[in-house]
This record gives sequence, C-alpha cells and structure tokens, in this order.
Amino acid sequence: MDIFEVMGTCRAIRQLKPDPVPPELIDRLLWAATRAPSPGNSQGWDFVVVDDADARARIGAAVREAMVERVAAMPRPDRTTRLMLDGTGRLVATLDQAPVLIFVTGGVVYPPQAPKEAFTWSALYPAAQSIILAARALGLGSVFTTLHHVADATIREVLGIPDHIRIAATIPIGWPDGVQFGPVNRRPVADFVHHNHWEGDKRGSGA
Amino acid sequence: MDIFEVMGTCRAIRQLKPDPVPPELIDRLLWAATRAPSPGNSQGWDFVVVDDADARARIGAAVREAMVERVAAMPRPDRTTRLMLDGTGRLVATLDQAPVLIFVTGGVVYPPQAPKEAFTWSALYPAAQSIILAARALGLGSVFTTLHHVADATIREVLGIPDHIRIAATIPIGWPDGVQFGPVNRRPVADFVHHNHWEGDKRGSGA
Repeated sequence: MDIFEVMGTCRAIRQLKPDPVPPELIDRLLWAATRAPSPGNSQGWDFVVVDDADARARIGAAVREAMVERVAAMPRPDRTTRLMLDGTGRLVATLDQAPVLIFVTGGVVYPPQAPKEAFTWSALYPAAQSIILAARALGLGSVFTTLHHVADATIREVLGIPDHIRIAATIPIGWPDGVQFGPVNRRPVADFVHHNHWEGDKRGSGA
Repeated sequence: MDIFEVMGTCRAIRQLKPDPVPPELIDRLLWAATRAPSPGNSQGWDFVVVDDADARARIGAAVREAMVERVAAMPRPDRTTRLMLDGTGRLVATLDQAPVLIFVTGGVVYPPQAPKEAFTWSALYPAAQSIILAARALGLGSVFTTLHHVADATIREVLGIPDHIRIAATIPIGWPDGVQFGPVNRRPVADFVHHNHWEGDKRGSGA
C-alpha cells in the first residue's frame, strides 16, 4: 500500500473487534518497528506483545479504574473533541477486549552525550510510529497511546518489565469494529512551519 | 511507493548532493510529518526548515567544531560500525552542504498527567519518523539525527528558537550522493520480542 495513502488515512482506531489477529501479522508490525532508526543503530527497543487474556484483563482493569471517570469529565468543546474523547472513553473502558496489546519499551543503551530521555525516546517513538503505519497498511486498527502512565505499577507487575526499562507506548491492535480508516483531522501544514527562522507562535497556543 | 519497501530500505543517507530540493517536496515531507498522531491530537510540533546558506554555514560550523574529532576517536570494532561512523564523520564535517535541514521541535502543550518529557517526545518523534519515511519514498536522502544537542546554543541563536521549545531531531535532506537506498542492517526481530512476559535480557546488552 502506498505510503502517502497510509499516512493520510492512519486514523486512530479506538474500537477493535475481539477476534484474534494472526501472529504473522503481528510479526510484520514488529519487523516494521525494527526498521526504524536508533542512535548509532543501537536498536535498544524491546516489544512486549500481550495476547494472554488474563494479562489483558488485569491491565485493562487498572486502566479502566484510573481513566474512565477522568475521561468522562474532560471538556468536549467541539464535535471533533467530543468524538475523540468518546472514543477514548470506550477505549479505556474496554482495553482488555483488544486482542493484542503491544508495549514499546527500551533502556538507555547509547552513551549519554545528550539528555538520556531524548535518547531513549528518539529510538522508541519512531519504532512505535512504524507499528501504527504498518498496522494501517495491513488493515489492522491501532491507536498510539501512552496509557501505561496511568497503570504503570500493574503493567510492570503483570508483564515483569524491569524498573530500568522505560515504557514509551501502549498500542492496542485488532480489526476495526464499525469504524473506518479515512483522512486524519489536522490543522493546515503552514500552521507548523517556520522558514529559516522562528516565526513566533503560529497557532495562538502560547508555544 | 509501498510502505513496507520504504521501511525496509530506509537507510540513513549521510552523503547528500548540494543541489536544491524543490520546495514542493519539502512540503510533502511536512504534510507526512503532520499526519502523525499526538496526545489528544494536540499537534504540538513546529518544524524549522532551513535552506538559507548563511544559517546552514553557521550551524554546520558549530556541529563540525563539536563533533569531528569526537567521531574520529570513536572505536570501530567491526566493518558495520566503521562504515556508519565514517559516514557520520563525513556528515558532521559537511552538514552545511546539505541543501535543507529540518529541525523537528515543539513545546509541551498537553496537560501533564504523565512525565512531560514523554509527552513532548511522543508527538515529535513519530512526526520525525514520518519525515524520514516520506523522504525515502520520494528518493530523497535523509538521516535521523540528534546533532542539535552538540550545538544547541548556536542553533537557537541562528534560528531564534525559544528556550522553552524542545528540539527533538535534526534531519538533513538532499539527493543521495554516490550512496543508494537498500536493506537496513538490523538484528533478528526475535531479539526484541517478549511474549506476554518479559523474557530477560535478549541481547546480552544488560537491558
């Protein structure tokens, strides 16, 4: 599938069927992830692939407990935000129904000549992005989340992830359930571009 | 171009021709970048696109001064590492010859319910990864770097990037000069995958 079409239609799919996903498709996602660049080609990522029902149930319960009321209380000033947050609400309420959860994790493996955090994330998030794009190319729904932050202790306990390993992304994977891929909703590109010199706050966001 | 072919052959291209790159191709890279996900669709990224020769010369000189000797002194235990570091050496010595530099930057725009750093990077690095992939699809060379860390003060001064804006990636863009796209060099995928539970240090890296 053409890469620009993939990127342009890579909507977050927050409603997933519980049907299993063939392991060979998950393998393709991980192959894609590991084609990403990393500092000095250090490849310091570890992917925890969770399809065990009990593990998903325990993680899902922790996320549900932490997030359902919080998401319900978030303001919904416009239709776009409402649709997104309604989707997020369903996602956090039913995370354990996603047939596969991929946790993108890793340690700091490159000599820290720069802030360690940046070096960790500069390897892990490109890999996570490639998972999202590859999933969309295969027709699999996914959503790029950092939901692990709200259930860190439970996730580490259930999955045995050591404390020194950072978790970058939590990505539910499954077949889309009643939702479709389509053009993503973004501001005009010009709102983000500075030509040769910083042009000030381009979006009135205080940035 | 097929997304899996793009990912599989997205080599870092560290030797770039000085020939200008049509602005409409740069625009396609930025379009691709801004299709990436971000927390709550906050889109908190700012791209500084630098093709001005003087700006590139000043930034290139700062990177050269900080990095040429350091890269020359790095150990090259095997052929793969030698080729990569030789390429990095050429890159840091000639960064100003790349016709375009894209700085992927952004502020923290999402309410910090989690570590701020993670939220910044979780938006910026996926966008940076999409730039790399889109460039490869267009036949443009690029290399994902964090070279700004070694010349932060100069880059901020030359480009006017405010202190509260984080710089995530420095991406030289241009046509490949005597180097070709081809399969990327990676460990076997199994070295990175844990099934339902952390399986220990899979690569003898202490991770």
